Amino acid sequence: MEKVKVGVLGATGAVGQRFIQLLEKHPWFVVTEVAASERSARRPYVEVMKGRWKMAGDIPPSVAALEVKECIPPLDCRLVFSALDASVAGPVEEAFADAGYIVCSNSRNHRMDDDVPLMVPEVNLDHLDVIEQQRRRWSNDGFIITNPNCSTIGLVMALGPLHKAFGVSKALVTTLQALSGAGYPGIPSLDILDNVVPFIPGEEAKVELEPRKIMGTCQNGRFLLANVTVSASCTRVHTRDGHLEIVSVQLVEKADTDELIKTWERFNPLAELGLPSAPSPPIIVRREDDRPQPYFDRDEGNGMACVIGRVRTCPILEHKFFVLSHNTIRGAAGASILNAEAMYRRGYLKS
Amino acid sequence: MEKVKVGVLGATGAVGQRFIQLLEKHPWFVVTEVAASERSARRPYVEVMKGRWKMAGDIPPSVAALEVKECIPPLDCRLVFSALDASVAGPVEEAFADAGYIVCSNSRNHRMDDDVPLMVPEVNLDHLDVIEQQRRRWSNDGFIITNPNCSTIGLVMALGPLHKAFGVSKALVTTLQALSGAGYPGIPSLDILDNVVPFIPGEEAKVELEPRKIMGTCQNGRFLLANVTVSASCTRVHTRDGHLEIVSVQLVEKADTDELIKTWERFNPLAELGLPSAPSPPIIVRREDDRPQPYFDRDEGNGMACVIGRVRTCPILEHKFFVLSHNTIRGAAGASILNAEAMYRRGYLKS
Amino acid sequence: MEKVKVGVLGATGAVGQRFIQLLEKHPWFVVTEVAASERSARRPYVEVMKGRWKMAGDIPPSVAALEVKECIPPLDCRLVFSALDASVAGPVEEAFADAGYIVCSNSRNHRMDDDVPLMVPEVNLDHLDVIEQQRRRWSNDGFIITNPNCSTIGLVMALGPLHKAFGVSKALVTTLQALSGAGYPGIPSLDILDNVVPFIPGEEAKVELEPRKIMGTCQNGRFLLANVTVSASCTRVHTRDGHLEIVSVQLVEKADTDELIKTWERFNPLAELGLPSAPSPPIIVRREDDRPQPYFDRDEGNGMACVIGRVRTCPILEHKFFVLSHNTIRGAAGASILNAEAMYRRGYLKS
Amino acid sequence: MEKVKVGVLGATGAVGQRFIQLLEKHPWFVVTEVAASERSARRPYVEVMKGRWKMAGDIPPSVAALEVKECIPPLDCRLVFSALDASVAGPVEEAFADAGYIVCSNSRNHRMDDDVPLMVPEVNLDHLDVIEQQRRRWSNDGFIITNPNCSTIGLVMALGPLHKAFGVSKALVTTLQALSGAGYPGIPSLDILDNVVPFIPGEEAKVELEPRKIMGTCQNGRFLLANVTVSASCTRVHTRDGHLEIVSVQLVEKADTDELIKTWERFNPLAELGLPSAPSPPIIVRREDDRPQPYFDRDEGNGMACVIGRVRTCPILEHKFFVLSHNTIRGAAGASILNAEAMYRRGYLKS
Repeated sequence: MEKVKVGVLGATGAVGQRFIQLLEKHPWFVVTEVAASERSARRPYVEVMKGRWKMAGDIPPSVAALEVKECIPPLDCRLVFSALDASVAGPVEEAFADAGYIVCSNSRNHRMDDDVPLMVPEVNLDHLDVIEQQRRRWSNDGFIITNPNCSTIGLVMALGPLHKAFGVSKALVTTLQALSGAGYPGIPSLDILDNVVPFIPGEEAKVELEPRKIMGTCQNGRFLLANVTVSASCTRVHTRDGHLEIVSVQLVEKADTDELIKTWERFNPLAELGLPSAPSPPIIVRREDDRPQPYFDRDEGNGMACVIGRVRTCPILEHKFFVLSHNTIRGAAGASILNAEAMYRRGYLKS
Repeated sequence: MEKVKVGVLGATGAVGQRFIQLLEKHPWFVVTEVAASERSARRPYVEVMKGRWKMAGDIPPSVAALEVKECIPPLDCRLVFSALDASVAGPVEEAFADAGYIVCSNSRNHRMDDDVPLMVPEVNLDHLDVIEQQRRRWSNDGFIITNPNCSTIGLVMALGPLHKAFGVSKALVTTLQALSGAGYPGIPSLDILDNVVPFIPGEEAKVELEPRKIMGTCQNGRFLLANVTVSASCTRVHTRDGHLEIVSVQLVEKADTDELIKTWERFNPLAELGLPSAPSPPIIVRREDDRPQPYFDRDEGNGMACVIGRVRTCPILEHKFFVLSHNTIRGAAGASILNAEAMYRRGYLKS
Repeated sequence: MEKVKVGVLGATGAVGQRFIQLLEKHPWFVVTEVAASERSARRPYVEVMKGRWKMAGDIPPSVAALEVKECIPPLDCRLVFSALDASVAGPVEEAFADAGYIVCSNSRNHRMDDDVPLMVPEVNLDHLDVIEQQRRRWSNDGFIITNPNCSTIGLVMALGPLHKAFGVSKALVTTLQALSGAGYPGIPSLDILDNVVPFIPGEEAKVELEPRKIMGTCQNGRFLLANVTVSASCTRVHTRDGHLEIVSVQLVEKADTDELIKTWERFNPLAELGLPSAPSPPIIVRREDDRPQPYFDRDEGNGMACVIGRVRTCPILEHKFFVLSHNTIRGAAGASILNAEAMYRRGYLKS
Repeated sequence: MEKVKVGVLGATGAVGQRFIQLLEKHPWFVVTEVAASERSARRPYVEVMKGRWKMAGDIPPSVAALEVKECIPPLDCRLVFSALDASVAGPVEEAFADAGYIVCSNSRNHRMDDDVPLMVPEVNLDHLDVIEQQRRRWSNDGFIITNPNCSTIGLVMALGPLHKAFGVSKALVTTLQALSGAGYPGIPSLDILDNVVPFIPGEEAKVELEPRKIMGTCQNGRFLLANVTVSASCTRVHTRDGHLEIVSVQLVEKADTDELIKTWERFNPLAELGLPSAPSPPIIVRREDDRPQPYFDRDEGNGMACVIGRVRTCPILEHKFFVLSHNTIRGAAGASILNAEAMYRRGYLKS
């Protein structure tokens, strides 16, 4: 079987590096293009990355040798993963969609567009249907799909199955987010040593809005936001990877703690699709008092699973629990790759 | 003026050390006794503390020379500060009260006793009245008063003025607590490096209950718990000092963000008492997006003030905000000393 | 092929856990016994370890089910790995050797014994010869072999090849050691947050002596210490794993920087033995200015390789460089396993 | 007494902020000017610093109100402290000297100039004599004096008295430097969490050269470098403030450990000058096994004293010890201020 050629836009940044690392031995995809800003272009990737590669292990040799391109079509690939900064991602992604490429974007720019799916495949695989609608926007056969913010993902993975089973009416969440979520160089060490930063620009608004689209419905090519109220407070703590979220939730139908746990543990809607990056199960519930912990649990399911713990009654809303997910894998590059795999299975990547 | 002689029970532990440090230059009190477990007794404090003194600066010379006693009356002092571990504090504190000592306890053992005030002087100074009731328990002129848990204090300092002004019906809090809250040796470094510990034994129950006593009323020598529902989730993060708390609150009477801020900024009920450890003002409201931060704000008011920030609307309850307080000063030793100062002013310490 | 049965003494501690983790899929050895102190004995390992397992991933199921035994022969195995604390390791290891077991010890107790090899297989494989001598001590067919201290190993891996090629006369080393080297619970978080601990009890003496035995000669069953002077200063820094060492060295024969690098890069004396845990190459030399770094380089060769960098001229001795090695793998459990593999190849493990 | 007006060049950076903080209540000096790059100029300091002030406590009100100027003479002051980045400090400092200002520079640009003193007042106060020589360079009555690199200072404070007493021939030093030494934003948190950075650009060369000038002699307006060989390896560790240095030293005359300690403890050459920032004593020797530690010892003498510990025999050179000094106080802003105070006493600041 011939692998599908893919490119990485924003290949030099933290998320771009993660894409390259995760795609190294991918069974369906092969990285044939790395693109970045003009000043990196026309040099070998390995040379551009001297002193900038921050992943464990070395740059995959096949990618190291690639010449860095500018983020302008055409590129020699069928699909591009976009790890571009939000300050530039908007028009670049549009240009690629218009030129016929499938764009799997990790950037926020098009997440809330009326005709762009904001995907968490376990939760809203049917949202892919809106792509037909979107295709009318573009001159060629391309389109854009997106994955949510790194702090939305853990929340939605936990709430999604509950919403399906019982209805979720309210969710109040406090996030303890890892440093890698701010990219590189990101947070100065002097800001976080012996400290917590109680603010992440723009984050709370995303966490309050994105879940409503993801858990909403898509009918006749139109999204209906879910009728769920989310209240978020976002903080940055001294961990490298893994966003920990403390959630209180109110359900529409009554349910007890055991029913919540069973719902999560039975949840595995992608099982039969055989997607290489889909964790199985996607949700792990720990019974110990003191889990999940970022250091010990973030790599579950190769960083693609969510770990839930401390499920108990909330005296104000009804239930409370902790959820952890790996912010640069499940919350960024891995999410985009899972989206691409879902599309591959659905036949969107045939040339 | 002759200073009041005070003793420190549990003088070798983390909170005991903080008592000694804070009392070093106290205008009203002088440490004349340090007591600890049997195996430390009968040696000079400075010798017992070799390699164990963890405060900045050296042991105050006048205390260094004291012989460590066992925690058994009599001691040469009028008042004892109890920094004892909860596993032993109960009967020891009773023995001292019964022997005629005033016991200012930082331990949890007697906090919820029917006749023991759980004091935050800015909020419930009138609770001292219950002491008369308590005195019937003891053979002599002693009694016990307590201060709340280190994660209760920030919450109550923020809620207390709101409760008085508008009534508080619900408060949902997530705590990010500092390492010093677990004492010494406390949390192993391998447990917290690049990690968050999402559980502190017993803590959530205390945070959900203690505020109800503190903000409750005391009539005819009986406490009536405040009609406030608190939901708490407690975590340990990688900071040395300063508990940061993320709070959503619902009020009985409507109020807008500005009214909350004004209420806090005008709050200074102890101002006229001239207590040496009372911060003035006790509550500082920061307008920046990214405050309070443990490293930069925990020492406000010599560690006795609370810093509130990010006051804004909560889409689920009505308001949300962050509050920070120094856990071993305002949340422990400093709170006990402030209690003692309030009693001094009220005339309880006259011999 | 039937696997050799092995036991782990001190199986509940930090190093014991590492043994179990590293042996999980070992091609030659299978863990059939886990032994610990009396109070853990007679319960399933998984139950004893509740809340104490600190490795990434879960306890290997085959070990989880084992009943914990006391550290007393007989055990159902041919070889025991000793991760015992030095306070008890001495007589226990002797009892096992005397009962006919092969004892691979990570403890310091017998390292300097006249008839016990202190092994770094890449450097002194021939020291195994002294085993014949040692066997006279014991009633049965057992014996003890040891691996060096976790901060000796990096130094000796770097110096060993230089000593063979040019002779080493002096080595001055400063160590920056990781927290895991102190075991669990080990260093309290309050001692190391925003701090360095400039002292590790007993460590400098070991680093100054052990290399002389390892790089020394073994003739007619007697050790001759190498004529090398080592001066060590040992510190504890805020890293989880990976001891970083800064070394200045004086050679007997003149050599330039390139010759040192070549010597290290050509060094691979175990290559032909096919030992499963032997890294190949055992020494990696990085040319970048800013390597080796504990976080990025400690896992090289599955934690069994040493990474050397910043090789340059020293104006006082002749050369200086940095060397990094993983302290709980190459510096502890992995080293013992490599020793066992070397003995296996040499035929010592045939029953 | 009227205070001497001083300005701060580079007032917005980390060292500039430290100058402002340390000068807040200075008995002799008053900050009348703050200057920075063109893009900060012509706005009030407090406004420019919104979100950038990183010192504990708030901006001193008298400075907060100052309008930021560009780094171009004239400024309304007699002396300027230069906290400028080395990329721009050279010509700016020359311009101020030429315009008649006394320039106390923390930058490296002019440290090794033939006619510029590189001052550590306790060690080489007589080097001020070279100023007469330097004045010929400039049109007016100004001149430049400098203080050493933040990692030179601890070393020289320790070696200076030994050099005077016994002669120092060789010193081999490994530094463990704090994050604040790299300025702000400085080291990204992702680079240092669970890590050590084994390289600081340019640092080792400075540490190997600067002590030779400081401990050298100044005769007839010319410097003679001290005949001391220094070998340095510099690392960055996870501490906020306080450079810890591990030193081995060889003396010209024999001395034992006690003589070294006595020499350091008797050392207090500035005692009689009454300089406000001069620590007394400047060197503190700790006898405990595990001191100095950055967190506990860096603030000795208000951050101006050096703390030495673990003095013992080195089997390669003769003695080894640890020395700690606060890098942004004694190693930067405080050092410059001490220089200014010394000049004030010597009469250089009279107008």
